[in-house]
Amino acid sequence: MKQLLYGVAYYFEYLPYDRIDKDISMMQDAGINVVRIGESTWSTYEPQDGLFDFTKLTYVLDKMKAAGMNVIVGTPTYAFPTWLAKKYPEVLVENNGQRKPYGARQIMDITSPVYRYYAERVIRHMLAVTAKYDNVIGYQIDNETKHYGTSSKNVQRGFVEAIKKKYDGDLDRLNHDFGLDYWSNRINAWEDFPSVNGTINGSLAGEFAKYQRQLVTDYLAWQARIVNEYKHEGQFITHNFDFEWRGYSFGIQPDVNHFAAANCLDVIGIDVYHPSQRQLTGAELSFAGDEARSIKMQNYLVLETQAQAFKTWTPYPGQLYQLAFSHVASGANMVEYWHWHSIHNSFETYWKGLLSHDFAPNPVYNEAKKVGRDFQRLSPKLVNLKINSRVAFVVDNESLTATSGNWMEFGIGKDKYNDVFRRLYDAFYRQNIRTDILNPATIDLSRYDLVVVPMLYVTDDQFLERLNDYVRQGGHVLYTFKDGVTDEHVKVRTCQQPGIISEAVGAHYEMFVDPNGEQLADRSGIFQDVDPTIDQWAELLISDGAKVLAGYDNHWKEYAAITENQYGQGMTWYLGCWANPAVIAKLVEHVCQQVGLVPNYDAHFPVIVKSGINEEQRQIDFIFNYSADEEQVTVPVKGTELLGGKTVAAGEQMTLQPWAVKIIEEQ
Amino acid sequence: MKQLLYGVAYYFEYLPYDRIDKDISMMQDAGINVVRIGESTWSTYEPQDGLFDFTKLTYVLDKMKAAGMNVIVGTPTYAFPTWLAKKYPEVLVENNGQRKPYGARQIMDITSPVYRYYAERVIRHMLAVTAKYDNVIGYQIDNETKHYGTSSKNVQRGFVEAIKKKYDGDLDRLNHDFGLDYWSNRINAWEDFPSVNGTINGSLAGEFAKYQRQLVTDYLAWQARIVNEYKHEGQFITHNFDFEWRGYSFGIQPDVNHFAAANCLDVIGIDVYHPSQRQLTGAELSFAGDEARSIKMQNYLVLETQAQAFKTWTPYPGQLYQLAFSHVASGANMVEYWHWHSIHNSFETYWKGLLSHDFAPNPVYNEAKKVGRDFQRLSPKLVNLKINSRVAFVVDNESLTATSGNWMEFGIGKDKYNDVFRRLYDAFYRQNIRTDILNPATIDLSRYDLVVVPMLYVTDDQFLERLNDYVRQGGHVLYTFKDGVTDEHVKVRTCQQPGIISEAVGAHYEMFVDPNGEQLADRSGIFQDVDPTIDQWAELLISDGAKVLAGYDNHWKEYAAITENQYGQGMTWYLGCWANPAVIAKLVEHVCQQVGLVPNYDAHFPVIVKSGINEEQRQIDFIFNYSADEEQVTVPVKGTELLGGKTVAAGEQMTLQPWAVKIIEEQ
Amino acid sequence: MKQLLYGVAYYFEYLPYDRIDKDISMMQDAGINVVRIGESTWSTYEPQDGLFDFTKLTYVLDKMKAAGMNVIVGTPTYAFPTWLAKKYPEVLVENNGQRKPYGARQIMDITSPVYRYYAERVIRHMLAVTAKYDNVIGYQIDNETKHYGTSSKNVQRGFVEAIKKKYDGDLDRLNHDFGLDYWSNRINAWEDFPSVNGTINGSLAGEFAKYQRQLVTDYLAWQARIVNEYKHEGQFITHNFDFEWRGYSFGIQPDVNHFAAANCLDVIGIDVYHPSQRQLTGAELSFAGDEARSIKMQNYLVLETQAQAFKTWTPYPGQLYQLAFSHVASGANMVEYWHWHSIHNSFETYWKGLLSHDFAPNPVYNEAKKVGRDFQRLSPKLVNLKINSRVAFVVDNESLTATSGNWMEFGIGKDKYNDVFRRLYDAFYRQNIRTDILNPATIDLSRYDLVVVPMLYVTDDQFLERLNDYVRQGGHVLYTFKDGVTDEHVKVRTCQQPGIISEAVGAHYEMFVDPNGEQLADRSGIFQDVDPTIDQWAELLISDGAKVLAGYDNHWKEYAAITENQYGQGMTWYLGCWANPAVIAKLVEHVCQQVGLVPNYDAHFPVIVKSGINEEQRQIDFIFNYSADEEQVTVPVKGTELLGGKTVAAGEQMTLQPWAVKIIEEQ
Repeated sequence: MKQLLYGVAYYFEYLPYDRIDKDISMMQDAGINVVRIGESTWSTYEPQDGLFDFTKLTYVLDKMKAAGMNVIVGTPTYAFPTWLAKKYPEVLVENNGQRKPYGARQIMDITSPVYRYYAERVIRHMLAVTAKYDNVIGYQIDNETKHYGTSSKNVQRGFVEAIKKKYDGDLDRLNHDFGLDYWSNRINAWEDFPSVNGTINGSLAGEFAKYQRQLVTDYLAWQARIVNEYKHEGQFITHNFDFEWRGYSFGIQPDVNHFAAANCLDVIGIDVYHPSQRQLTGAELSFAGDEARSIKMQNYLVLETQAQAFKTWTPYPGQLYQLAFSHVASGANMVEYWHWHSIHNSFETYWKGLLSHDFAPNPVYNEAKKVGRDFQRLSPKLVNLKINSRVAFVVDNESLTATSGNWMEFGIGKDKYNDVFRRLYDAFYRQNIRTDILNPATIDLSRYDLVVVPMLYVTDDQFLERLNDYVRQGGHVLYTFKDGVTDEHVKVRTCQQPGIISEAVGAHYEMFVDPNGEQLADRSGIFQDVDPTIDQWAELLISDGAKVLAGYDNHWKEYAAITENQYGQGMTWYLGCWANPAVIAKLVEHVCQQVGLVPNYDAHFPVIVKSGINEEQRQIDFIFNYSADEEQVTVPVKGTELLGGKTVAAGEQMTLQPWAVKIIEEQ
Repeated sequence: MKQLLYGVAYYFEYLPYDRIDKDISMMQDAGINVVRIGESTWSTYEPQDGLFDFTKLTYVLDKMKAAGMNVIVGTPTYAFPTWLAKKYPEVLVENNGQRKPYGARQIMDITSPVYRYYAERVIRHMLAVTAKYDNVIGYQIDNETKHYGTSSKNVQRGFVEAIKKKYDGDLDRLNHDFGLDYWSNRINAWEDFPSVNGTINGSLAGEFAKYQRQLVTDYLAWQARIVNEYKHEGQFITHNFDFEWRGYSFGIQPDVNHFAAANCLDVIGIDVYHPSQRQLTGAELSFAGDEARSIKMQNYLVLETQAQAFKTWTPYPGQLYQLAFSHVASGANMVEYWHWHSIHNSFETYWKGLLSHDFAPNPVYNEAKKVGRDFQRLSPKLVNLKINSRVAFVVDNESLTATSGNWMEFGIGKDKYNDVFRRLYDAFYRQNIRTDILNPATIDLSRYDLVVVPMLYVTDDQFLERLNDYVRQGGHVLYTFKDGVTDEHVKVRTCQQPGIISEAVGAHYEMFVDPNGEQLADRSGIFQDVDPTIDQWAELLISDGAKVLAGYDNHWKEYAAITENQYGQGMTWYLGCWANPAVIAKLVEHVCQQVGLVPNYDAHFPVIVKSGINEEQRQIDFIFNYSADEEQVTVPVKGTELLGGKTVAAGEQMTLQPWAVKIIEEQ
Repeated sequence: MKQLLYGVAYYFEYLPYDRIDKDISMMQDAGINVVRIGESTWSTYEPQDGLFDFTKLTYVLDKMKAAGMNVIVGTPTYAFPTWLAKKYPEVLVENNGQRKPYGARQIMDITSPVYRYYAERVIRHMLAVTAKYDNVIGYQIDNETKHYGTSSKNVQRGFVEAIKKKYDGDLDRLNHDFGLDYWSNRINAWEDFPSVNGTINGSLAGEFAKYQRQLVTDYLAWQARIVNEYKHEGQFITHNFDFEWRGYSFGIQPDVNHFAAANCLDVIGIDVYHPSQRQLTGAELSFAGDEARSIKMQNYLVLETQAQAFKTWTPYPGQLYQLAFSHVASGANMVEYWHWHSIHNSFETYWKGLLSHDFAPNPVYNEAKKVGRDFQRLSPKLVNLKINSRVAFVVDNESLTATSGNWMEFGIGKDKYNDVFRRLYDAFYRQNIRTDILNPATIDLSRYDLVVVPMLYVTDDQFLERLNDYVRQGGHVLYTFKDGVTDEHVKVRTCQQPGIISEAVGAHYEMFVDPNGEQLADRSGIFQDVDPTIDQWAELLISDGAKVLAGYDNHWKEYAAITENQYGQGMTWYLGCWANPAVIAKLVEHVCQQVGLVPNYDAHFPVIVKSGINEEQRQIDFIFNYSADEEQVTVPVKGTELLGGKTVAAGEQMTLQPWAVKIIEEQ
C-alpha cells in the first residue's frame, strides 16, 4: 500500500434518493479515500436472468473516479436474486434435509453447479464493466463466505468420494481409524455410507466439517481464478474473513480454515466487531488483527468495523478515534467502516453507519473527520508497519470442531475452544506481549521464543514431535489441558496422556475430573494471593520430573495441576485445569519472565502499548488507554508524540485521558 | 341492554351425565341470567359429513327457555370435527410450510374454501334451529379468531395480488418503498415474488402481517353476513376478542385489528384473564375494558373471565365479588365466567369453572351468589353506564409488528410494544385517570384534552401532521421514544428524528444508545427523589426550544432525555428513554397537572376509583381496594353507598377492607 | 446364583488393537469373574445382509472360556448396521411424522416387521454359535429397550384396532370415557380416528402411552421366545432395565412398565447411574435396587453401573469400594461396570470405564481390585441375601404419564411425578426404613405394615377400594395430594375428592390452589420447628373426622393441609400439599412411629444401614457413611465385622471413615 486507507462501505443502491455528490463531498471532508461497493446487489445488476444493467454501478464508479476516490469492488454473490431462487430452488442451501427459505443473504449452496454458473456469469459481466476503471484498487471476492452447513445429497456424495480416495477404498482402515464398530456404525460397503447428518461419531463428524471447510477454500479459489482473468496489474484480490460470532468477533472462525482459504488472496481482509462503550477493551481487534497479519505475515485490511452500529456500541467520545489507530497498531493498512449511511428498511436498520438515517453530520461522523485528517497527515509514518512477535499461538479448526459437538458429550463443559483460546490470548494482550496466531500447518516454530498451544485436542504425531524437537533445541511451549489427546482422526491416543508431548512436559495423567468445588493449591509461590477457584476440567497430573507449580487442595491433593519442566535446551509449562483469568495472568507473567519476554513499556491493561517499525525504520509505539479513567505511563525512550506533535523525553511520565491514544515515534 | 347480565359458558355436551335441571337451579340460585353455548361442539352437531343432529342443542335451549334463562349462541366453527380433517387435510392451517396436526382448536385455515363451505353449512343448519328460540339474545360468531399464522400457497398468492393491486403493478415503487435492493431482495417481476416465510425485510413482513389481520376482518364479516340472514330484531352479533397472551391478557392483540374487525359487530365482546390472589391489581381488566368500550364508544360484554380457573388464580375471599363490579365500572354490561363446571377430561381440566369437578357448591360459587343478588338488585343503577375520558391512548398494530420481529434486530431490547404501552397505561390507571384507547384510524383527537402516543413507530405523514395540528390548536400530547420513526411502509424517515412531530416536540435527536449504566439526571425538580435507572433505549435529544425536564448523567450529559414544549396553543412532552415506572409515574403526574386533569377522589393505587353516569343521569363512583391491607378513602361528595345501602356525607372517611368494593351514587 | 458376580461390559470389537490376553489377566487380578459382550455390534457380526462373521465373538468366548470367565451374551439388536438402514429406511423409528436419521443406537421401530425379521435372523445365528459355550451363564435380550416414541402409521393403526377391540366397537362409550366432545374432538366413525400425534386429550394420550409401553413388553417377550429355543438349562434370560434419566437414574421409567415387561425374564437386570463425588448419597441405587428386587421378589443383577464415567462422577477414593457393597445390600447378586476400557472414538469417549484410554492401572482400577478380592472372599456370606420390607411404595406409569404431558396444562407445576415419588422415597431411605416398590397390579397389600401411595392420579375404583379394605383390616396408608383423582381413563371423578379413599382418609377437598406464599401451619406439634414453606400445590382439605396435623397460615387458614385418620383397624395419613423435604421427613418419622417401624440401628443419613438374611440364615448389616466426614454408629448386637474381620460387641461404638462401608454379621 502506498498510503493508509480510510474507507466506508457504500450502498448507492440502498439510498432512498440520489445524494451521491453530497455523500462524496462529506466523505472527502472526513478524509475518506476509499469506498467498498457492489457485494450485495446482484438483483439490481441482473434484474432478470441474463438481463444485465450496471448503470448504477458505473454511475458510482464514474462519480468516484471524478472525485479521486479509490474503490474496492465486491463480487455480488453472497446474496442472490429472487428470480434465481424461483427458477432453481436447488441453489438454496440444504441443511440437515431442510432447504433454507429465500430471504436472507448467505443461503446458497456454494457447491451447486447452477449457482456456480449464474455467479460466474454475473461476475464476468460485472468485471468486464469495472475493468475500465483505474480507481478500482482491488476486488473483494464474495463476502464472509462460509459453508452454511451445506449437507445436501451432492455434498454427501462428494464427501464419500473424497474419503474413499483418501483411504484408497480401504474400509477396514476407515472403520478402525474412526472407531465405527461402536454402536454398530461399521460401514462394510461404500454404498452403505449413511448420511452424516445423524452421526454421533466425532471422527466422522470432524472429517465432514473439515470437508465443508475445504468447500469454502475451493469456492474462494474458484472466484479468485475468475477475477484474476480481469484484474489489472496493481489491483489486489482480498476477501472479508470473519470470526466466531457471539454477538461480536469472539474467536477463531469454526467454519473456515483461514490459513488454507487465504492462498488465493493477495491481501487479507477481515471484519472486526467488538463490544464498545464501557465494555471496550481492544482485545477483539487485537486477536483478529494478530491472526489476519499472521496468515501471510504481512499487513492486512479491515474491510468492516463498526461506526455507530448498535445502540450498545455507539462509541463514547474519543473511542472512534482511538479505535482507528488500534487497527493500525495491529498492522492494518486500511480501516473501513460498515457503513456510510444507516439503512432505512430491512434487517440491519439498527446496525447504524457513520451517518444516521438523516444523513446529517453527527458526533460520530465529526470524530471520523479527526481520524481522516490524522490518517492523511501521518500516513507516511504509519503505513506498512512491520510487526515482530516473539510469541505465537497455535490454533486449530479441527480441535475446535472436535471439542464443540455433542459427539463429545461430557467434554470440557460450558466453555468451548474459543473461550480457552481467548482467556490465554487476553492474558498476553493485557500484559502487552505481542503474539502471532498460526496453525500447525503454517507455523515456523523456529521464529518464536515461546509457543502457546491451547487445547490442541486433535493433531497428528508429527506436529507433536516437532513441538518436542523445538523445546529440545531451546524453545518454550505453554501447553494446556486436552493438548495432544487425539490423533488426526479424533481417536484418543492409547499411550499415556498428554500423549507424545508428555516427554517434554515431564508429567502425565491417568484420570481427569470435574473440579466440583476442588480448588487450586499453590506449590510455588506464584499463585499465592490469587483466587484459587477452578471449574469444568481438572487433569490429575503426576510429575515425572516436572516442577509442580500448583496442585489441588482437597480430594486430589496428591496430584499436580500446573507444572513446569526443563527439557533439552528449552522449557515447557502445562496448565492442567481450567483456571480463572487471575491464575492465568500469573502463569503467563511467570512464563514470560522465564523466557525473558519483557515489554518495552512498564504498563498493562487498561494501558495497552503496541509497537512496530515503519518504512523509515523508526519504531512507532502506540499507547492506548482503554478506560474511562485517566491513566499514567512512563515513556522509556526519547521520541515525538505524533498526534500532538510534541517531543517526549526518555522517562517522561505521560497522562492519558479516558479512551485516549498517543503515538510515539522513537528517536 | 335492559339489565346487567350475569352469565356462564355452559357445555352440556361435555357433562359426564345429564344434570341440566340441577345446573339451572344452581345457576338461578346464583342470579345467573344468561348462558353462552355451542361455540366448540361442531362434531356433536354434525357427527358425519352432512348428517346433522341438534338434539343436544335444542334440549338445552328448551330447558333454558323453560327456566327463563337468556342464551348467547356461538357459531361452532373454531374447533372442527375429526371427519373433516380426515377428508380434507387442507383445512388444517399451514404455517411456514408445516401443516398443523389435528387435535387442538383454532387450527383451521380461515381462508380455505373447503373450510368455509363446511363452516357455512353448519352455521346455517344451526341457526335454522336456534331461530325459533326467543330466549336467544345474541350470537357470538366464532371465538377468539386469529389468523393462526396462515401462510399457505393460496394466502401467499392472495397477498401478492393484493400488493400488486395496491401498487398498480408498479414494482419500482414497491422496491423503493420496501428497500428491496438490500441483500439482493429486489423483485423485478411479479412472478418472482418469493414466499414471505423467509423474509428478513420488515416492510414486507409488516405488510404481510397487515394482510393476515385483514383476513381475520374478512372472515368475521363473512360469518356476520350469514348470521344476519337468520337473526331476529333485538338479537345482537358479538365476538369474543382477546388480547396479547402472556399467560394472561397483557396488551394489544398483535394478530387482529380490533378496530377494523369490529365493524361487522353490534356489540363488542371480550375475554379478560388476569393475575389474581396476591397479584391482583385490576389493571388488566381496566385496559381491556377501556379498549373494548372505545371501539364503538359504547358498553361491552365480558364474554369470558375467570372463576376458579388455575391454581394460581383461585380468588381469595372477596376477590370474585370485587372483580364483577370492576368490569361494570369499566363499562361492561355483562360478566360471564368461563365456565360453569370444571371439565373432567382433556386440555383444560385444570382451568376450573365456578363449580369444581364434583359439581357441589364451594366458596367461589357461594361468592358468585352474592354477586348475582347484588347485580339483580342494582341493575337499574349500573347498566348502560356512560363513561367519559379526557385522555386517549393511540395504539397501533403495525407499530407493534414492526418493533417485534427479528427484522428489527437490535430494536428496543427485551421489552416490546405492549410493555411500553402497559407501563404508560398503568401509570394513568394507578393515578385514577380514566383513558380511552383508540388507533390512528379511529381517534377523534378533538374529543380529548390529552393524547398519549406510545411507540407509534409506524405511521403515515398525515397522522403526524394531524397530531401537530391538534397541539397547535390547544391539544396536549405525551410522546415516547421511537414515535414517528418510519412511514407507513416501515421505512425510516430521512428527516431529522422524531420526524414530523419534531416541530411540536421542540427537540430532535441524531443518535440513540443503550443506556448501558447511564442514568437519568433531573433537570426540573420533577424527578428529584426517584430511582434514576433507565434501560434498553436512550435517545440523545437536542432541544430546539423545548424545556429539558431530565437529561443523562455521564457520557451523554449534554443531551436531554425528557422534554416539555409549548407549541401553538398546546403542549407536548417527549419521553426519550425507557424509564422505570417510578419516573413515568412522576412524568404522568406532572403532565396531568399541566393539562388540568384532577381525579375527583384523592386516591391512588391500591385504591382505584372509577366513575360513570347512569341512566338516571346520576354519577356512580366505584371504589376498589386492590390489596390485602385495610385502606382509607375520603368521599368528596354526599351520596349513597349502594352495596351497603348507607348514606355517606361529603368529606367522610371510608374504610376499605382488603379486596373490597364500594359503590357511591352521588347526590 | 452360586456366587457374587463381579463384572464388566467388554467390547473387544471397539479395541484399537488386540490386547485380550492382557485384559483378561488384568480382569482376573481385579477379581472380575464375568463379562457382558455382544449387545451393540450387529454390524461386526453381520457385515452385509445375510453374511455372518462371528469370529470376533467366538475369539472372545474361547479366550474367556480358557480363562474360566463367565459370560453374559447380549442380543445385538439395539444398534443396527448401516446396510439395513440403507436398504430399508422404514426400520428407522418415525416420531411425530419425522423419521430419525441413522447414527445413534435405539433408533429402530420395534414394531417394524422388516426390523423384526432381520433382528430374529441375527439372534438365531448368534445363539447357534454361543450355544456351544458352557461359560455363557445367561443372555441379555436387547438393551434398555423403550418404544422410542414410535408413532408411525402402522403403530397408529395397531392402536386404533386395540382400542376398538377394547371398546367392542362402541364409539359412544369411548367418546364418553375420554371426553371427546370437548373442542369437537368426537370420533363418530372408526375411520375418522385422527393421528394421536396432535392430540390435546389426556385420556387419548394416556391410552396411547399405555399402548406404546405394551409394545415394549411384546417386543421383549418376542426376543425371549427366540432365546428360549437356544438357551441351556441353568442359563438365564435377563434384560437391562433403566430408569427415568435426568442425567442419571432419577425415578420410575416412563416408557416401560417394568412389572409387565419382566414376565418373560428369569432374572431382573438394571443399569444404575447416579451422582458421585460430593453428591453421592446412595439414594439412587437404593430406589433402583428396591424396584428391581420387588419386581420378582428375588435378587437382581446390576448389569451396568459407573466406574470412572464422567468427570463429575469419577469416584473419590473409597467410593467405588463402598458402592459395590451398596448394591449387594439392596439385593444385587452382581455388580458389573460399564465398562472395562474407555472408548477411543465416538459418542461415549468421555463416559470412561474402569481403565482409561491408556489401558494402564489407575486409582479406580486399583480400588476395583480391593472389591474383587473381598467379593470373592465374602461371596458365601453375601450372595442371595434375603431382604424383607415392611413398607411398600405403589408406583404407576399411567399416573406418571397423565401428570407429565401438556394435556395436563397447569397441573402440579415444575415438579413431576418422579419428584414426588423421590421426595417421599428419600425420606424413608434417610431414616433407614427399607421399602419395596410395586404397582397396583402386582402389590400384595397384606404383606406390608405400611403402604405409601404417591400421586396415584390415575386408577380404577377397584384398587382404591382394595386400599380402603386394607386399612379397614388394620393396614396403614400414607397418601399424597392428587391421589385417586381420575379413573382409569384419566377422567376426573365426579365425586368429592380425593374420591373413593376419602372414606378412609376422613377428609375431602372442594378446591386446590397454588400456595403463592401461603405456608404450612403446625396444628399437632409435629412440624413445630420446621421450614413451613410449601409450593406448587395445596389442596384445601376439610376434615370429616380426621385429625388435622397441619393447616395453612394465611388466606386459607380454615383448611387442613395434612391429616391423620383412624379407619377400621388401621390408619391413614394424607399429605395435601407439596411440602419441603424437612416437613416430609417429620411426617414420615411420625407415621413410622405410629406404625411401629423402628430401625434396628439408631442412625440416619449420612449413615445408612441395610440388613438382610444370608444363606446361613444369619443377619447381615451393611453400614455406609455417605459423607466426607467421620461418623459414629452404635452397633446394637454382637457380631463380626466381615471386611476387617473383627468381632464387635453389642453397644460398641464404631467409627466410620469418610465414604466407608462396614459389614456386620450378627451372631
